[in-house]
Parts: sequence; C-alpha cells; structure tokens
Amino acid sequence: MNIKLTVSYDGTAYCGWQVQPNGISIQGEIERALNKLTGKDIKVTGSGRTDAGVHALGQVVCFDAKELTIPPQKFAKALNTFLPSDIRVLSSGQVDKSFHAIKSAKKKTYRYSVYLSDIEKPLQERYAVRVDGGLDFDKMQAVARLFVGEHDFKCACASGSGAKSTIRTIYDIQIVQKGNDVDFLVCGNGFLYNMVRIIVGTILTAGYGKISVECVKNALAGGERSLLAKTLPAKGLCLYSVEY
Amino acid sequence: MNIKLTVSYDGTAYCGWQVQPNGISIQGEIERALNKLTGKDIKVTGSGRTDAGVHALGQVVCFDAKELTIPPQKFAKALNTFLPSDIRVLSSGQVDKSFHAIKSAKKKTYRYSVYLSDIEKPLQERYAVRVDGGLDFDKMQAVARLFVGEHDFKCACASGSGAKSTIRTIYDIQIVQKGNDVDFLVCGNGFLYNMVRIIVGTILTAGYGKISVECVKNALAGGERSLLAKTLPAKGLCLYSVEY
Repeated sequence: MNIKLTVSYDGTAYCGWQVQPNGISIQGEIERALNKLTGKDIKVTGSGRTDAGVHALGQVVCFDAKELTIPPQKFAKALNTFLPSDIRVLSSGQVDKSFHAIKSAKKKTYRYSVYLSDIEKPLQERYAVRVDGGLDFDKMQAVARLFVGEHDFKCACASGSGAKSTIRTIYDIQIVQKGNDVDFLVCGNGFLYNMVRIIVGTILTAGYGKISVECVKNALAGGERSLLAKTLPAKGLCLYSVEY
Repeated sequence: MNIKLTVSYDGTAYCGWQVQPNGISIQGEIERALNKLTGKDIKVTGSGRTDAGVHALGQVVCFDAKELTIPPQKFAKALNTFLPSDIRVLSSGQVDKSFHAIKSAKKKTYRYSVYLSDIEKPLQERYAVRVDGGLDFDKMQAVARLFVGEHDFKCACASGSGAKSTIRTIYDIQIVQKGNDVDFLVCGNGFLYNMVRIIVGTILTAGYGKISVECVKNALAGGERSLLAKTLPAKGLCLYSVEY
C-alpha cells in the first residue's frame, strides 16, 4: 500500500530534508516516527530535498506501508504524536502503486519571502529576509520574465550539485507585495541546487539596479554563475506546494 | 537626557520583560547592551512587563542617558549591534524629562493571535495558537463588548498579581479575521496579570458556545475568576503598541 503524506515543517533546527551522517534531518524524524508507530524500518521519499534551514508548507512524502493495517488517512494524526512540534503531517492518504513523490511531480512551487525594512524585525526574521527599500518592481518583473521557460540553468546552480542535466523549465514567477512583505512564488518542473535562492537574489539585485537584463541574458546563454547575484539565506525559502 | 526606545522582540527564549534572578530577560539584555555601548550601568523602564514567552512589536522603553553624548536617534542602531537578533530597537529619540514609559502611557494595545486548523501548523505555531473551527463570531463579539468600558477586572486577573486596584478600562476589542487567522486587538489603559489571555480565552470559549453572556456578566459583577475561561498560552500574545 502506497501512502502519500503532505508535510509542513519549520526547517530552522534541521540539517535539511535528507538523512545526513551528522545532524538531524526531517526525513530522519519522519522515519523515526514511522518506526515508533509501526515497529518497522520504513524508508520515505520526499518530493524535494530541502536544504538546511529551508521550511515547507506542502512537502509531499511517500512510502510503502506494505502489510500495515492502519487506515491510510489515520497516518497523519498517528505520526504527529511521535513527531517534534516543528514537523507536522497535515494529511495522509492512499495513492496508486505507481505514484512516486519525485518522479510523478509535475510542478513544484517554492516561495521566497523578504520584507522591506531598515532594521531587522524579530517577529519576521525566522521566515523571511530583511531587504532595503527602494526596489524597482518593473525591473524585477523584467528580470523574472527572463527566467521563465525552458533554459539551461547552469548559471543559477551552486557548485556541488551533481545534477546530470541543468536544463529545467520555470512555468511562472509571481512577485506578490503586501505592504512591506514581498513573496516570490517560483513554479517549475524541478530545481537545481540553490536555484531559487540564486534566481530571487538576482531579481532583487536587479530591483536595486545592480544587475541588468543584458547581464542575466548573458548568464543564461553562457552558463556563468558569477554573472548572477549571490545565494540568498535559507530561512526565507519554503517548499510551498507540489502538483501531481 | 531622557531617551525613548521602541523595541520589538521574539519572547520565546526569555523569562519575560523584567529582570529575574533566574533566566534571561529582555530588560536585562537591553541593560547589558547599554552597558557595553556606554560603559555605564543604566536602568531602563518598559511600558509593560510582558510575561515569559510573550512577544512585542512596539514595547516602549525609556532611560536617563545623563551626560552621554550619543545623538538620541543613534541609540537604535548602536544598541542593536550589542543585542541578540531576537531583540531589536526599531527607533530611538529624545523625549521630555517628564516622560515615563509606564506613567505617561495613555493606551496600550495587545494582540492575541490564533489560527483555525485541525492540525498544528509548524510555520504558525511560534506566534499563534491553534484553535478548532466552528467559532460563532456573533457570540464572540457579544462577549467582547461586555469587557469594553471601565470595570473591576478581578475576574480576569490571575492570582499572584499584587495590583493595588483591579479596576481598568478597556477602550476597544477588535476581532480581525483573515482567512484562517484571527487576531484579537485589545486596547486599554492598563492590564492586570494574564488579563488579555483570560479575556481572549473567554471570548473564544463563548465562540464555541461554552460560556454565555450571562456567565461573563456575573463574573464581572462578582469578581469570580472561575467563571471565565482558562488562561491562553503566552506565545499568541504580543505587545502591539503603546500610545502616549
């Protein structure tokens, strides 16, 4: 029996999604909770390997429940009793045998959150990054549009990625401003290592007039990482939703 | 020279505003930062002694800068370099000699935040409290109105308060719903120990039909604490603003 979980977490305290030799991972905590619940060692697969400090509102996780007799929709509440309070299974259910959290994913949306302020605001710092005012939203939109479509995103990939191909498709980048809060919703078919954090950093830098449309075009054409902005901090990033 | 600071903090890690023999306090951290900045022992006064785990968006703090030659508006940035990242001075400036953070305060507003959900949401849990759906907002408004005005709030005061008088005036209680988030903005001339957490708990309990208008009237008339709801958790509470 193939079970699908939708999981939200505050990634602050974790070394990321994936089990690591040193550090506590989200995947490890979910597998530990499954073991406590069922007495069995069950491996889970997440739709995306979020990095250390990255959050999730709608991470999708699947696992083979084999001969377990727990009703599929009961896994959510049962697992939550064994999970730390910064990880919660929002829902659970049975899916087709062929469903795979990574391979079946059609669209993934990440949200990157910043807020405009001269001074860090303690109640916003956990899930967003402070940026200076004076952003030119027209310039940001112009640069955002360049990333949309199928491209070789080599220029927007941190070293150490190990991805076989650096070609990805971005379907949409929405820039949503509410007062001093600005969210970037980046939707694509898959993302390279640090790709969202580099793209949003580049859009912001363009908003301050420090990177031009031409520069971004050259980066996409030539694959040169150094033409784009530096990688933004992990804490502003959140795996928002996955569509299948 | 009398200096006024506006301070925001994430209260999660602190024993509250006030210096305590055991535990790290907000006041203590600000006095420590002032000492590092000026080399002097300076006592600060906060507009309200927020409890352990309570947050602030607009705590007001004042102190006597005596013969210090730092320009008043520079204290904010200077103190922030010595403060932990969960405490930030948002602004600073000189005020009249007669200004006193507690005695000069005319209105204080606290915000209590809840969200409607069956399951705890890790990205909301730090600054809000999960509550079940099914709230009757008309019933909540009816009970909220009973608290507005000058009353003896003995029924809404936790034991151990030590306040000379339990008479306070609440000017307004706003219930603001945005999607599944509900904020209670309680504005008054002063608040007793746990008063906001008891009042909002009572409004919510009325929203589930478990406390009646009559019951709250009796509590206000007779001063009986047990007629109202239990005290809500600290983490949903935030000292929102102080008017002078």
